[in-house]
Amino acid sequence: MRAAVMRSGRIVTADIAEPTPGPGQVLVKTLACGICGSDLHALKHGEQMVRVSREVDAWAFVMDLSRDVVMGHEFCAEVLDFGPGCERKLKRGDRVCSMPMVPVGDRIAGVGYSNEFPGGYGERMVLGEQWLLRVPDSLPTEAAALTEPLAVAEHAVAKAALGNGEAPVVIGCGPVGLAVIASLARRRIAPIVASDFSPIRRAQAAKVGAHVVVDPRSEIPMERFAANAGAKQAVIFECVGVPGMLAQLMKQAPHGGRIIVVGVCLEEDRIQPLVPISKELNLQFVLAYSREEFTATLHALAEGELDASAFVTGRVGVDGVAGAFETLGTPDRHVKILVEPWRSGGLS
Amino acid sequence: MRAAVMRSGRIVTADIAEPTPGPGQVLVKTLACGICGSDLHALKHGEQMVRVSREVDAWAFVMDLSRDVVMGHEFCAEVLDFGPGCERKLKRGDRVCSMPMVPVGDRIAGVGYSNEFPGGYGERMVLGEQWLLRVPDSLPTEAAALTEPLAVAEHAVAKAALGNGEAPVVIGCGPVGLAVIASLARRRIAPIVASDFSPIRRAQAAKVGAHVVVDPRSEIPMERFAANAGAKQAVIFECVGVPGMLAQLMKQAPHGGRIIVVGVCLEEDRIQPLVPISKELNLQFVLAYSREEFTATLHALAEGELDASAFVTGRVGVDGVAGAFETLGTPDRHVKILVEPWRSGGLS
Repeated sequence: MRAAVMRSGRIVTADIAEPTPGPGQVLVKTLACGICGSDLHALKHGEQMVRVSREVDAWAFVMDLSRDVVMGHEFCAEVLDFGPGCERKLKRGDRVCSMPMVPVGDRIAGVGYSNEFPGGYGERMVLGEQWLLRVPDSLPTEAAALTEPLAVAEHAVAKAALGNGEAPVVIGCGPVGLAVIASLARRRIAPIVASDFSPIRRAQAAKVGAHVVVDPRSEIPMERFAANAGAKQAVIFECVGVPGMLAQLMKQAPHGGRIIVVGVCLEEDRIQPLVPISKELNLQFVLAYSREEFTATLHALAEGELDASAFVTGRVGVDGVAGAFETLGTPDRHVKILVEPWRSGGLS
Repeated sequence: MRAAVMRSGRIVTADIAEPTPGPGQVLVKTLACGICGSDLHALKHGEQMVRVSREVDAWAFVMDLSRDVVMGHEFCAEVLDFGPGCERKLKRGDRVCSMPMVPVGDRIAGVGYSNEFPGGYGERMVLGEQWLLRVPDSLPTEAAALTEPLAVAEHAVAKAALGNGEAPVVIGCGPVGLAVIASLARRRIAPIVASDFSPIRRAQAAKVGAHVVVDPRSEIPMERFAANAGAKQAVIFECVGVPGMLAQLMKQAPHGGRIIVVGVCLEEDRIQPLVPISKELNLQFVLAYSREEFTATLHALAEGELDASAFVTGRVGVDGVAGAFETLGTPDRHVKILVEPWRSGGLS
């Protein structure tokens, strides 16, 4: 099958072996798969991702980068065939979403950061039958493909558990930040203050539900928060994930403040502990989502509680993935680019 | 008056100007004053402490190191005289404890990390009348002098708010770690697992209430915890405060674990964010105590709920402070050395 393959630190288009569904596995056709910031990072800093993941026994990013990897873990797909021992509650042709996991005997493997299991940048994948969720007919494929990144945000917001006396400041309005804003907005949390250097992203932040958008070049997000949130205490959502961000936000945080670390910084970072100590800050690091949160996110999308229309800004075929990665290096132009492996050609 | 003065990065004995009580201030005689780890740090890394404090608007450590500083903020003292406008509810000769603060007009100044207000390494101090607490007659002066460091631990343990399904692992059994153990023990929290490289400190940890003591050279604290705490989740109290500790504890922490950062690391530190992210760790940084906590700690000491007998391992006069600082550089020999400025001579 055709796939955009990470090979020797580059994305190349290649014909690779067809995946075959094993026990409990389902063969699917990839309909749409989002390009995630972590994928961009894996291409640039893959060795570091793998090394740190091994160090901390985090299986999510453990792969052999000297061999092919087909990334893509934010997908909507169509059921093609069933492996042995499947319950077959879904039918061929059903559209599905799934957490990017597959059962292999009694262990679980990841899909998308794996040498064994190609992700959604390829024409077909095998997924675990037990995690497949049927996509309601009313929900467009493109929106369904956003279930995964929106579930990340739903989880982060649930974990933050904002009290009545608190309100959010979202730092960074890339796909993660926008998803967090959408998740906060659907909970009717107010005011939502959001900050990004990019005017396009600020406009999108307002579209998905931010009440106040800030250009950090000219204004201090915490000052705009203070002017808009009354006596409420700021809970900062870090949605950037680059070294130095955490140290900077610790300096800006109020005394007794909380920082929810949603951005995944894959490089070493430096902090001045006296800063969080002197303010008695609380840091909650978050990752991924539960099965229940993933399911609830799909339903929230289907019921129109979460509006994903502002997210998808481009579409590419397999041939266009390398170019899309380059384009996404410039944050001003796109939010989410979907890979549609059945489509041919570059960005549209 | 005689005082042990921090001057040009050294501790010297000197005659300095007598403090005079201003409005709302009380002149006291220092009866006993503990040497704090932060004082040792201030002598070695004072410039960095001051620079970082300024950066983060933390007034606690802001002082001019080119001028004299008399440190000492963990004290028991005796009332000598009252400044103008005092209410004089206490009498001359009363023994008192106090948060290390003094009112200056409508601002509050610190005592002990200050060019204006000498701390307890000098014969006399001025303190704020509003914060003075009478020491109950039954409580020895030495124990009363421990109110401040024990209040730090009481605050940390209160802030940690351990649930029924949680139990503590205390990393580092210096004065801070021992105080945390004592505070946990008085709340009947069990099991308390404590870890330190020093056999003397491990013995003291057991004396103040640790149920399991671990030598991290030969055992992994988290493994001993797992063997002793059943299904309880570990809450890690970081009581060391040196660079690298936090990164190490993040690696050892369980998924969803909490780290209470009590140790005050005054240098830059490095972390691998993917470690806390992949485990969804929660970090609570803590500092100091409230006025209520300080008062409650003094009463807990007086009522025998907190046993401070294991803490004081040495006493010095003003002349002995420089030597005591050197001795405390070797963690094996002492826990808390008290400065008793009325006494002459070296360590006893």
